[in-house]
Amino acid sequence: MKRQLIIPFFLLLFVSLAYAQQEPVDLQMIEKIKDEGLNRSQVMKTAFYLTDVIGPRLSGSAGLKHANEWTRQQLADWQLANATIEPWGEFGRGWDIEKSYAAMTAPYYQPLIASPKAWTPGTNGLVKGKLMLVNAEKEEDFAQYKGQLKDKIILVQTTPDIKTTFEPDARRFTDDRLAEMAGTAASAPSSSGLSPERMAEYRARRAVREKLSQFLMEEGAALVISNGRGMHGTYFTSNGASYAADAPAVLPELEMAAEHYARMLRLLQAQQEVEIETEIKTRFNTDLTGYNVVAEIPGTDKKLKSELVMVGAHLDSWHSATGATDNAAGTAVMMEAMRILKTIGIKPRRTIRIALWGSEEQGLFGSRNYVKNHFGDAQTMKLLPDHVKLSAYYNVDNGTGKIRGVYLQGNEALRSIFQAWLEPFKDMGATTVTIRNTGGTDHQSFDAVGLPGFQFIQDPVDYNTRTHHTNMDTYERLQEEDLKQAAVIVASFVYHTAMRDQKLPRKTMPEAKAAGAN
Amino acid sequence: MKRQLIIPFFLLLFVSLAYAQQEPVDLQMIEKIKDEGLNRSQVMKTAFYLTDVIGPRLSGSAGLKHANEWTRQQLADWQLANATIEPWGEFGRGWDIEKSYAAMTAPYYQPLIASPKAWTPGTNGLVKGKLMLVNAEKEEDFAQYKGQLKDKIILVQTTPDIKTTFEPDARRFTDDRLAEMAGTAASAPSSSGLSPERMAEYRARRAVREKLSQFLMEEGAALVISNGRGMHGTYFTSNGASYAADAPAVLPELEMAAEHYARMLRLLQAQQEVEIETEIKTRFNTDLTGYNVVAEIPGTDKKLKSELVMVGAHLDSWHSATGATDNAAGTAVMMEAMRILKTIGIKPRRTIRIALWGSEEQGLFGSRNYVKNHFGDAQTMKLLPDHVKLSAYYNVDNGTGKIRGVYLQGNEALRSIFQAWLEPFKDMGATTVTIRNTGGTDHQSFDAVGLPGFQFIQDPVDYNTRTHHTNMDTYERLQEEDLKQAAVIVASFVYHTAMRDQKLPRKTMPEAKAAGAN
Repeated sequence: MKRQLIIPFFLLLFVSLAYAQQEPVDLQMIEKIKDEGLNRSQVMKTAFYLTDVIGPRLSGSAGLKHANEWTRQQLADWQLANATIEPWGEFGRGWDIEKSYAAMTAPYYQPLIASPKAWTPGTNGLVKGKLMLVNAEKEEDFAQYKGQLKDKIILVQTTPDIKTTFEPDARRFTDDRLAEMAGTAASAPSSSGLSPERMAEYRARRAVREKLSQFLMEEGAALVISNGRGMHGTYFTSNGASYAADAPAVLPELEMAAEHYARMLRLLQAQQEVEIETEIKTRFNTDLTGYNVVAEIPGTDKKLKSELVMVGAHLDSWHSATGATDNAAGTAVMMEAMRILKTIGIKPRRTIRIALWGSEEQGLFGSRNYVKNHFGDAQTMKLLPDHVKLSAYYNVDNGTGKIRGVYLQGNEALRSIFQAWLEPFKDMGATTVTIRNTGGTDHQSFDAVGLPGFQFIQDPVDYNTRTHHTNMDTYERLQEEDLKQAAVIVASFVYHTAMRDQKLPRKTMPEAKAAGAN
Repeated sequence: MKRQLIIPFFLLLFVSLAYAQQEPVDLQMIEKIKDEGLNRSQVMKTAFYLTDVIGPRLSGSAGLKHANEWTRQQLADWQLANATIEPWGEFGRGWDIEKSYAAMTAPYYQPLIASPKAWTPGTNGLVKGKLMLVNAEKEEDFAQYKGQLKDKIILVQTTPDIKTTFEPDARRFTDDRLAEMAGTAASAPSSSGLSPERMAEYRARRAVREKLSQFLMEEGAALVISNGRGMHGTYFTSNGASYAADAPAVLPELEMAAEHYARMLRLLQAQQEVEIETEIKTRFNTDLTGYNVVAEIPGTDKKLKSELVMVGAHLDSWHSATGATDNAAGTAVMMEAMRILKTIGIKPRRTIRIALWGSEEQGLFGSRNYVKNHFGDAQTMKLLPDHVKLSAYYNVDNGTGKIRGVYLQGNEALRSIFQAWLEPFKDMGATTVTIRNTGGTDHQSFDAVGLPGFQFIQDPVDYNTRTHHTNMDTYERLQEEDLKQAAVIVASFVYHTAMRDQKLPRKTMPEAKAAGAN
């Protein structure tokens, strides 16, 4: 934007008209979309229901089941066609928390901000006892503890990083940052991914940690306490065991606020006695099936109505909060985009379908299997007949931040089209088209079989510092104006994709993976 | 500082020398203080013990008793003289938490980040039931609930302010801000106080809230749930009843993370059923006496050794964390200043005394009564013989931030003295002498009887956003370098006050309060 300020206005107008000639934009329809989406929005009502009323939506949990039923019903109530809970295959065991209490009882009483790691068992009543420090960074470190851990409550040593920061938790992209994104060449996934080095480190640590879990189990320890990244009572959560139906047994495991973990760590390192009491009850569910929720606005053009435009977001969340920004936000935005389009009575040429994915957090399972069931197999690249029919898939899963642009996911042929479609939303902050790939969520399942799948650039706000996978990913972290803006832009993108003469241009098809590769 | 940059260097040097001529500064001793305080600091070890090992130190609690005993012993171990736990009069009932568990059990299970309000009773076992919303901003609102509250769990409606902020939690004073402080005329307490309007509002709300507590008690409700200011799992704590031995009975009351409170509030406002289970055990202690801890480095000058310089900080804290920045920080800094002076073997002319106050959080009780017992009565202005003997009292109670200067507390005669004493610490960030008053802590007890009592200007860091009175006022919020700097500067101020030919100049004496006034 900064650089454009020095371009004379008539030239800007010309550029703008030039785009408009290349790629039609229905400004009248955009006004209708904006009017419905900004003046009669239901996005916060939807988000309230998904978060506060339904609660955590861990894959396979009672919460996700409730969310499937409620979203299907809500989409049907909005008069969408074919609203269905569609099984995608076997996920594994669902899991819910029924009780979670933990406190330090010596050297003084302090309730602990903690929750069980996902898919870990309960304690079978109140467990009380001294805390024992286990420091095992490598497998070789296990030996020193052999025979000493029977019935012990274990604190697994890590190095909490909880230094005071003088930076804000929440931020928006600056014009400079957006200009930088617009200028760069295609690259590896950038927005949600770790660097390859950090990923390798992380995997190595995780492998040792899994072996340690087994070792502690074999030694007959009672309970494991581990550190949750984060600070000030916010902690990041994860799983402590596999959801697989045949997963090996593990110990009950609590993760907790770093301040509470670190206090006990310091006490133990200073040879102070620490005692704990805790009671955890968790429940494993019997339905192993995974589900997505789908619904449609049917196409009306005789020739094109069998073609598809899809929008989606994952409905599942982690378990220690209500998954507000990850990803009730995306779900509510996508549902709202559908509601807007239905309410203003569009007659799309192609069929528009929404899909709310299950089990994204465990590996994009809902979307991957949906793609496999409907479009083609990313391993063998054996394609199904509908593969040719999908014009595009749009995804929202980067939190509550408003849309600042879109990732081309390496498909340069789309630049002028998306630029034309963004143009009417410049005054709402959406300006940037970047050739970059972005990763970490469900559009990748489509990209993997050569289908156009896209994520939008969203302001980060406090996604990485406070909300994403934390115990504080709650309703109040949702930014109402941002979600309204996102719903309106998504609705417009979807509408234009559905009305376009041609499907969106595709990249060259990926090759089949070598047999046996994963 | 900015404005001084345009003053020619030779002039600066002249000013500097001029100060030095007016007020002697012992640079050799300052080097010794810096060497001991920066290279062999024990401030973090002391802070660790006060926070992690001893824990919360609520007035009258087992924690404060432990802190009294440990600090007295530590001061004695450092070879300070006359280390004593000194009773100051009757405080009231001590109070400790023995169990605190709370969870939302419907519409789904969620452990709540919560703790009992100070001095509230327990639940006498597990309490389970539906949550009921009570909205009573004025006393007239109570009537509608009459007869409906028997055995109910009550959520008291307030308006949580938990909007996402794009500002940092922690900050330091800028040069501009310090220049502004240096330039202003004396004013009402500025650093910790509320404006008179906000204070009046706060008092009015508090009065209604106290009457509501009585009403809920009379109606036989089971438990009260209220909102803790703060966000992201950090909440500010307070008392839910008086510590007085004859305080009227109240209900058990939990305050909790605003995100958990606000979720239940939204659910109730949307007519969704919410259920709670909770178990609270608290214990009231029988020793009603309040205590301070004192110790000395005796003076060595025959004429001046009966005169005093004092340093102090309050040792008590709130109950839901370990009171790291409020005020283990100040306690550790003051203890460290004494340790440094003792270790480097000073021979002070006047006696240097440290006092660690009890019950500051309830109204500066420890220091007020100490002053009353030793120096004079702030009501009647009847003075005791030692009133003439105290040169100055220095206090630290604004968190972990390093010292940026000192408040003159309206005493202009001290400006050139304190400027000379700060001069050697300019490179450590301590530059500013302000005529302003600052309030909210124990130097006021001295100021109230016309004794020179001072607080330092400290960088705020995250004192007001994250730590002060919160459940997250923990060890990791302490900034090691800042505490070392503060201890060194305090040690130097105390040393120079003890060695000065004259006691520090005093303000005109305050008048006695009208009989019967408070």
